Amino acid sequence: MSESDAWVGVDWGTSNLRAWVIGGNGEVTGQAESDQGMGKLAREQFPQALQDVLERLTLPEGKVDIVVCGMAGARQGWLEAPYLEAPTDLAALGAGAVHPPMPDERLAVSILPGVCQRVGGENVMRGEETQLLGLASLSPDYAGLVCMPGTHSKWARLDGTRIERFATAMTGEMFALLKTHSVLRHSLAGPLDGPAQDEGFVAGARDGLDNPAALLGQLFTVRAASLLSGKGPDWCAGYLSGLLIGTEIAATRNDISTDPVPLIGSAKLCGLYMRVLNMAGASGRLVDSTEVVLAGLRAARASIA
Amino acid sequence: MSESDAWVGVDWGTSNLRAWVIGGNGEVTGQAESDQGMGKLAREQFPQALQDVLERLTLPEGKVDIVVCGMAGARQGWLEAPYLEAPTDLAALGAGAVHPPMPDERLAVSILPGVCQRVGGENVMRGEETQLLGLASLSPDYAGLVCMPGTHSKWARLDGTRIERFATAMTGEMFALLKTHSVLRHSLAGPLDGPAQDEGFVAGARDGLDNPAALLGQLFTVRAASLLSGKGPDWCAGYLSGLLIGTEIAATRNDISTDPVPLIGSAKLCGLYMRVLNMAGASGRLVDSTEVVLAGLRAARASIA
Repeated sequence: MSESDAWVGVDWGTSNLRAWVIGGNGEVTGQAESDQGMGKLAREQFPQALQDVLERLTLPEGKVDIVVCGMAGARQGWLEAPYLEAPTDLAALGAGAVHPPMPDERLAVSILPGVCQRVGGENVMRGEETQLLGLASLSPDYAGLVCMPGTHSKWARLDGTRIERFATAMTGEMFALLKTHSVLRHSLAGPLDGPAQDEGFVAGARDGLDNPAALLGQLFTVRAASLLSGKGPDWCAGYLSGLLIGTEIAATRNDISTDPVPLIGSAKLCGLYMRVLNMAGASGRLVDSTEVVLAGLRAARASIA
Repeated sequence: MSESDAWVGVDWGTSNLRAWVIGGNGEVTGQAESDQGMGKLAREQFPQALQDVLERLTLPEGKVDIVVCGMAGARQGWLEAPYLEAPTDLAALGAGAVHPPMPDERLAVSILPGVCQRVGGENVMRGEETQLLGLASLSPDYAGLVCMPGTHSKWARLDGTRIERFATAMTGEMFALLKTHSVLRHSLAGPLDGPAQDEGFVAGARDGLDNPAALLGQLFTVRAASLLSGKGPDWCAGYLSGLLIGTEIAATRNDISTDPVPLIGSAKLCGLYMRVLNMAGASGRLVDSTEVVLAGLRAARASIA
């Protein structure tokens, strides 16, 4: 594998995949995406789904390295890439890659492993470990918590390229479940972006930060507030969002140092987390998630056998 | 209203209604139920739904008192019975009843109010206040917490017939949501009554009791345990149930005294709560929910204007 050749990086998630052509100097020279996420594909459909995306990109002549992170390496994905086990050094991520064949033998695919944790709370990640490796390669001296807000938020303790431990909070999925399927949906039906949303967000975040052990009870506050105080859907949606994020952050508060917590995820969601971190007397800093995926794929490629 | 005449008690919930004919000495002489809960009925359909149930019962001659508790008195129910506000004495429950007309004027309907709380956490209940009044009339000296496990578990602080404050935990609904709609459903699909269910329940209850502030993170343990340790759906279902109940009970642990906590609800669910109370160093006692509804309707009837 030559560092001077152009290659392709792929982030293959459950619901979509993104691919970038990366030049010999690390610059992105092309990108494409598709909705053919792992969740929609049977095992034998992965090569064609990748081929379809590659055909929209300009590839170099000859052999092309393709480095894939994410759910393509899950047991129910393309080819299982067995987990590394935390604590572990992510600098060796590439050494755990697996290599499914492609019909076009010019294309040399490597699927990176995820990371699991067996001691101190069983847990798994696939994709985030590559972002963490990327963060470590961009901020090599950082030691501390990293927060990756999303459907399943990850909190990892990083020390350089070493991942010490991590946790997963089902915060985003919980918000969606409660908004769509629970009794609270009656209080959330309607326009959700009125000015009261912000007021509700702050009230919810405060309740979550102050009393994270009472989440199951505080959730019902949403319903009671709409019945008793006539709170509208914007306030209620803000409250629910703030309550969940506040509860999540309170659970990790004692592990947060005075350094700003790197936040990797959508800008909007990371902005909400940053605000609640500030309410908790901590701070955050936004990290571009595409930038760290690319940096992580690049760093992992260097260690592929 | 004469205490010596037979009358009819009705518990009208969201999903069904139950009616009992009660003789002059308080004995149940007939009962019937229907699936015509508040959630299925438009306002004008309530009289006929009640009539349909009454026709399957043998009513006394002449005027018949019908005392209704539950969701029929909600704003979206038959006729709104405005909430009493906690703290309040439930001995006056009947004084807050409203009286919707029936086509058959012989039938004198009273719908009992629910209870709300505006200070110390907004909250509402409709139906449980009647069970609490019933408990107080059967155990007049009890002062302490009462737990009513269910879709929305209620925890009330009772002192004789006085309700001091209460909370609602969305524990049962959360279990159903996570089992049906979340990523955890993959780990729960299959037979749920194997011997490992009990082992999972104890592990989950311990995690919930030990660290209730970490619920959003501990939920994902279900998924990780099935992926990493090959835990089956029975263990996972037990763990999820134990984790939620343990988290709920931990949040109220400091308010539980040495007296056994009265548990009002389904025998199976109350048995699980009793077990977790024991794990927390507390205790519970099962209370028959039909018995306390009937006692509550009887006690409330005495104060109907």
